[in-house]
Amino acid sequence: LGFVPTSIITLTTDFGQDDPFVGTMKGAILSVNPNVWIVDITHGVPAHDVLAGAMTLQSSYSYFPKGTIHLTVVDPGVGSSRRPLLVITDQYAFVGPDNGILARAIDSQQNVRVFHLTEQEYFLKPVSQTFHGRDIFAPVAAWLSRGKSPEVFGPTVDDWVRLDWPIPRRVGTSLFGSVLRVDRFGNLITNISPEDLACPPNTTQAIEIGIGGRIIRRICRSYAEAADDEPFMIIGSAGLLEISVCQASAAALLGVGPRDELEVRFF
Amino acid sequence: LGFVPTSIITLTTDFGQDDPFVGTMKGAILSVNPNVWIVDITHGVPAHDVLAGAMTLQSSYSYFPKGTIHLTVVDPGVGSSRRPLLVITDQYAFVGPDNGILARAIDSQQNVRVFHLTEQEYFLKPVSQTFHGRDIFAPVAAWLSRGKSPEVFGPTVDDWVRLDWPIPRRVGTSLFGSVLRVDRFGNLITNISPEDLACPPNTTQAIEIGIGGRIIRRICRSYAEAADDEPFMIIGSAGLLEISVCQASAAALLGVGPRDELEVRFF
Amino acid sequence: LGFVPTSIITLTTDFGQDDPFVGTMKGAILSVNPNVWIVDITHGVPAHDVLAGAMTLQSSYSYFPKGTIHLTVVDPGVGSSRRPLLVITDQYAFVGPDNGILARAIDSQQNVRVFHLTEQEYFLKPVSQTFHGRDIFAPVAAWLSRGKSPEVFGPTVDDWVRLDWPIPRRVGTSLFGSVLRVDRFGNLITNISPEDLACPPNTTQAIEIGIGGRIIRRICRSYAEAADDEPFMIIGSAGLLEISVCQASAAALLGVGPRDELEVRFF
Repeated sequence: LGFVPTSIITLTTDFGQDDPFVGTMKGAILSVNPNVWIVDITHGVPAHDVLAGAMTLQSSYSYFPKGTIHLTVVDPGVGSSRRPLLVITDQYAFVGPDNGILARAIDSQQNVRVFHLTEQEYFLKPVSQTFHGRDIFAPVAAWLSRGKSPEVFGPTVDDWVRLDWPIPRRVGTSLFGSVLRVDRFGNLITNISPEDLACPPNTTQAIEIGIGGRIIRRICRSYAEAADDEPFMIIGSAGLLEISVCQASAAALLGVGPRDELEVRFF
Repeated sequence: LGFVPTSIITLTTDFGQDDPFVGTMKGAILSVNPNVWIVDITHGVPAHDVLAGAMTLQSSYSYFPKGTIHLTVVDPGVGSSRRPLLVITDQYAFVGPDNGILARAIDSQQNVRVFHLTEQEYFLKPVSQTFHGRDIFAPVAAWLSRGKSPEVFGPTVDDWVRLDWPIPRRVGTSLFGSVLRVDRFGNLITNISPEDLACPPNTTQAIEIGIGGRIIRRICRSYAEAADDEPFMIIGSAGLLEISVCQASAAALLGVGPRDELEVRFF
Repeated sequence: LGFVPTSIITLTTDFGQDDPFVGTMKGAILSVNPNVWIVDITHGVPAHDVLAGAMTLQSSYSYFPKGTIHLTVVDPGVGSSRRPLLVITDQYAFVGPDNGILARAIDSQQNVRVFHLTEQEYFLKPVSQTFHGRDIFAPVAAWLSRGKSPEVFGPTVDDWVRLDWPIPRRVGTSLFGSVLRVDRFGNLITNISPEDLACPPNTTQAIEIGIGGRIIRRICRSYAEAADDEPFMIIGSAGLLEISVCQASAAALLGVGPRDELEVRFF
């Protein structure tokens, strides 16, 4: 009944892996609770890109065991008046800045309580103005993993910052969506779901996609199904429409990147 | 007697570290067995490069304790009819696609049994057509680490895909080899062993190497031994002939990369 | 009273993450002690850059719990006569080559004892001439974490290699410092401390900084405080003066990188 913390803390940041940021954050966690599993989701979120961080968290957090504590830091407003937050749901906890990065995860969970982190006794002191990942979020996540009740960290709030998530829009008989992100293989992950398409490849309607000056009509069920270099549609592992090319980069072929638009036309 | 699993699962993939792929795979493992040590070998195998993945696995797996489970995913044929495999040897287990990536490790181990992963109850459902690392390989590795008998995952097979491993060939008095990979420092790791060279630097025969339009005659025992910018031969940490330059990139100096050829001439 | 090892071993290297180096080092550690937490600080130290490695270690090691074993390998002299070292202080242990990489950490700790690693029974055999990270440092760190007394690894020494750490120098009324490193966000971390500046932003003296052909007079307390694209001074998370630009790269804007100079002028 409700959230019970495990000893797993995940990290999602835009810190990269070449600076000491991630290491010191891990040190700050282990200094509070040395018996914790720290799991990197990624530190390669584009710098300052809150929307990209929210997408990464959204596509990975639910694969972890119930009770996992997800620490997420993309934090261009660090040191300003933006609040540090702890979010408790039935299944997970989330720690991070109040800038929208947690909003998508909050929306997809039940029985959400959001706490403003104000109790300095759980912070690493002195708290810097530039690195709350190390000084606030890491120790709070670690104290939570040791069994501290969420209430001890600060008061609840309900006016957390929402995220301006890109939503497909219908114009006439077309659906206009956008590219959420490009993965390492050059696949274009869009914001369009199978439901938006009336569930292709099972749809009875014919569709085509206009993107990057090209028309795409082919739908594949696996990356290997297409043996040539024609781009195709596929429902990818995030449960969203992707534009892909067999063993090549659709992003490079089409000259398309994050936030670029695509048009789905139905016949 | 035979394989007994430890709680260590290693990961070798071509997923990179910027996408949520690795994180979700770790989540899928921990959801089955939260008491497992997950160790990244690398996620920087070049995209779709099965041979490079096999090389990476081959040069690292045997440094881990007996009982380690090695999960290896370079998988351009995901979603096609290529089979998912579990390999059990006297010392290790390997999980990955049947595309040759495990073949080199299989060849170097004793008492090998290869299982075709067919039992869907050990998969994460629904199984996507694009991410078997998360949906099949990760949960199977985790169930194995919990002590499930290999037999439960599917039937044994003996027709797994072999790998077209580059082998040096003798032409007249020369030996023609190739560059297996280039490491971060620009060292060229070749497919030539000390035995191929009659064990230099202890050979009594003089040798020279032709590569990238240059002739190399110097043999060093350490990277620091050569203080100038002349390339030299050295037996590296993988037990193979390398071409190196002191504190500089041999790859850049010689304009040579993976799969390029070199000629060893004996006098 | 004195050093008691925990089960935490950190890694700081210039190995990158694409080669099997880090993975095999972890395997070598786990083969000696499978019950150890291995924490990556970074493997992105610039190749062969001992000073950069020492900076990274210096800015992160003290955030870990007492008893942590810090393994640090930037080792251009591997295989030469440079000695492998184990450093024991009141709080931490450090393992790495005797080339200055540990010197800064040694200087900042109390009751330091430095051991020359000579006892081959704690090495992985055969010891290569090119990869002491795997063959010497990893197993020694692991044996230490299992409780071996530091004395067993070799004799103490007191003539370890010092580091040529860049120190600000006063010329007339100016202070000349330099950029220690550039972080992922393009912030320029300098070797100038608040004490050097008579503690700005609380100083009563006016200061300006000349760097990259620009004059910088603004001092901010957080990255978000400056909303425009003018560079500013800030005391960053390492407790040092940084030059930053709001959500942009000061390094790119100013054309400045590691070891470049800056001049602080007092009025």
